[in-house]
Amino acid sequence: MSATIIDGKAFAADIREKISDHVTRLREENGIIPGLAVVLVGEDPASEVYVAAKHKQTTEVGMRSFKHALPADTSEADLFALIDKLNADPEVHGILCQFPVPDHLDERAIVARIDPSKDVDGLSVVNAGLLASGEKGLVSCTPLGCLMLLRDRIPNLSGLDAVVIGRSNLFGKPMAQLLLRENCTVTIAHSRTKDLAETVRRADIVVAAVGRAEMVKADWVKSGATVIDVGITRIPHPDKPGKTKLLGDVAFDEVSEVAGAITPVPGGVGPMTIACLLANTLTACCRAHDLDEPEGLTV
Amino acid sequence: MSATIIDGKAFAADIREKISDHVTRLREENGIIPGLAVVLVGEDPASEVYVAAKHKQTTEVGMRSFKHALPADTSEADLFALIDKLNADPEVHGILCQFPVPDHLDERAIVARIDPSKDVDGLSVVNAGLLASGEKGLVSCTPLGCLMLLRDRIPNLSGLDAVVIGRSNLFGKPMAQLLLRENCTVTIAHSRTKDLAETVRRADIVVAAVGRAEMVKADWVKSGATVIDVGITRIPHPDKPGKTKLLGDVAFDEVSEVAGAITPVPGGVGPMTIACLLANTLTACCRAHDLDEPEGLTV
Ligand SMILES: NC(=O)c1ccc[n+]([C@@H]2O[C@H](COP(=O)([O-])OP(=O)(O)OC[C@H]3O[C@@H](n4cnc5c(N)ncnc54)[C@H](OP(=O)(O)O)[C@@H]3O)[C@@H](O)[C@H]2O)c1
Ligand SMILES: NC(=O)c1ccc[n+]([C@@H]2O[C@H](COP(=O)([O-])OP(=O)(O)OC[C@H]3O[C@@H](n4cnc5c(N)ncnc54)[C@H](OP(=O)(O)O)[C@@H]3O)[C@@H](O)[C@H]2O)c1
Repeated sequence: MSATIIDGKAFAADIREKISDHVTRLREENGIIPGLAVVLVGEDPASEVYVAAKHKQTTEVGMRSFKHALPADTSEADLFALIDKLNADPEVHGILCQFPVPDHLDERAIVARIDPSKDVDGLSVVNAGLLASGEKGLVSCTPLGCLMLLRDRIPNLSGLDAVVIGRSNLFGKPMAQLLLRENCTVTIAHSRTKDLAETVRRADIVVAAVGRAEMVKADWVKSGATVIDVGITRIPHPDKPGKTKLLGDVAFDEVSEVAGAITPVPGGVGPMTIACLLANTLTACCRAHDLDEPEGLTV
Repeated sequence: MSATIIDGKAFAADIREKISDHVTRLREENGIIPGLAVVLVGEDPASEVYVAAKHKQTTEVGMRSFKHALPADTSEADLFALIDKLNADPEVHGILCQFPVPDHLDERAIVARIDPSKDVDGLSVVNAGLLASGEKGLVSCTPLGCLMLLRDRIPNLSGLDAVVIGRSNLFGKPMAQLLLRENCTVTIAHSRTKDLAETVRRADIVVAAVGRAEMVKADWVKSGATVIDVGITRIPHPDKPGKTKLLGDVAFDEVSEVAGAITPVPGGVGPMTIACLLANTLTACCRAHDLDEPEGLTV
């Protein structure tokens, strides 16, 4: 069998188009423009790249993008003062602070300072609690993106056996909650799992978020299973000296002979993350204005 | 094989003795007495029984017990005014509202009104979020009690396969989080699970919280597994007309031939719930006073 390759790049483009249409309607019918504020502390080059990508995509879908770049030695008090201002600003519907931040700042405290209804990264304790309790909140972007890809591929996930490898607060745990909401039977595996191959082999849906290149092999995967590869490892490019290459957690070539569908790396899950950040910002904006939420872009 | 019967009644008595010792020390060394406030709205007879049992056990371990009985037609505003007062009262370290409440009151709103650091039932969104995020909070009493029984039986749970049947906010979901914290590989099963027998058969630890009498059969259970039976179903007593009898979710007689250890119903998990309510109240009190938490009674 040769698996369907799930094209996350195209899917993310579709999502952005849906968002763009919704934003246009919001502006024309309600005079509302969703706004996303991104806070960057210090000058980490990778963070600059991410923030630039977020800014570009935010404006491309017609939203307002507010960038706040603060010096590396910004005090917690000054950072919190800015967050408080953004929390109170009615033109700002989503707020995120790009991590990592300099060592003297505490990421959990920063996330906790953001109004949960504007926490579009879905990282706060309150949003984790809303998700765990089955209530409406904002969901971490990458798991939300994976869920969208899965729902598109398998409209009814109910009763399927899903295995999530990895249990981070950022990805594994919220992913497990989302699959549970969809009525999957969910297994959460991690570094202490005794027989990971055997655990994965049972699953109709495998979501791997570990960060170990090509760990999931063909003989770990049930024939026809849907495989979502979240892991990203950068290695020196085998053929192009001085260049690098991205690898996922799944041995793509061999697993795509067994799986029913699979996301590639790059071009699978990756592009969904920023698309879902925009989706969350739109959702937060609609909720702030008591308007209907965008269909299919929220849980 | 004949399973070890886990004596929850004796274990709960031990826990209460530990709590009582700690409470004595708190009083003698720090002049502090932990206090639990229980709010009862209306006159549900079953609730009266529970509240009386909580009151008795609270005072027996040397804590203060504050009972607030409100008429069935109490308005939300009046109930919230009481909760606000209890939130602010330094002699009150734990607050719970006995459910069910009359229909005009909203249980979620009531739980949300209680200061999360005094939410000793561990039911609030904030406490669910803290648990999901691996941070310190207060954990729902029955899953906490099950974890204590499991830890006592199996000091190192790491790497074991655990299946939780049931995914309620009150029990199944927090139980799964607790087992994940202990580094189990955790599967959450529920009414949509395709092949429950097969799923349960893989597990080293089975926790059943469904409410279907004797659903889990001997041929569902791996030889030597530890089985925790949370379910409670009351049926007419087969031999004593006019009397009732409690059944668990597990077919006790046959499963105890296969399992390595099993909790009976009654006398297994049941007695742990109030013991853990007292444990949570003690924990909340210690945290409020910046004192060391009681060992083994908290996560
Ligand atoms: N936009 C995107 O595409 C996106 C977004 C987020 C993450 N990612 C990628 O996804 C991966 C995971 O991210 P994360 O933030 O969740 O990472 P993380 O916090 O490092 O968590 C990694 C998880 O993998 C588990 N693990 C480690 N070694 C393992 C092994 N040998 N077998 C099974 N499980 C193992 C760990 O288990 P323990 O808990 O037992 O240590 C942990 O739960 C990374 O490669 C990251 O770059 C991509
Ligand atoms: N102190 C104590 O000893 C104590 C404390 C709490 C609870 N309990 C007892 O534990 C049981 C569960 O309590 P709860 O509050 O968690 O109940 P609940 O909210 O009714 O949840 C029951 C769970 O069981 C699942 N379920 C129903 N039928 C099933 C089936 N045929 N196969 C597999 N799963 C099935 C449901 O799945 P869906 O989500 O798919 O509907 C649901 O997740 C009750 O008997 C309760 O009395 C005892």
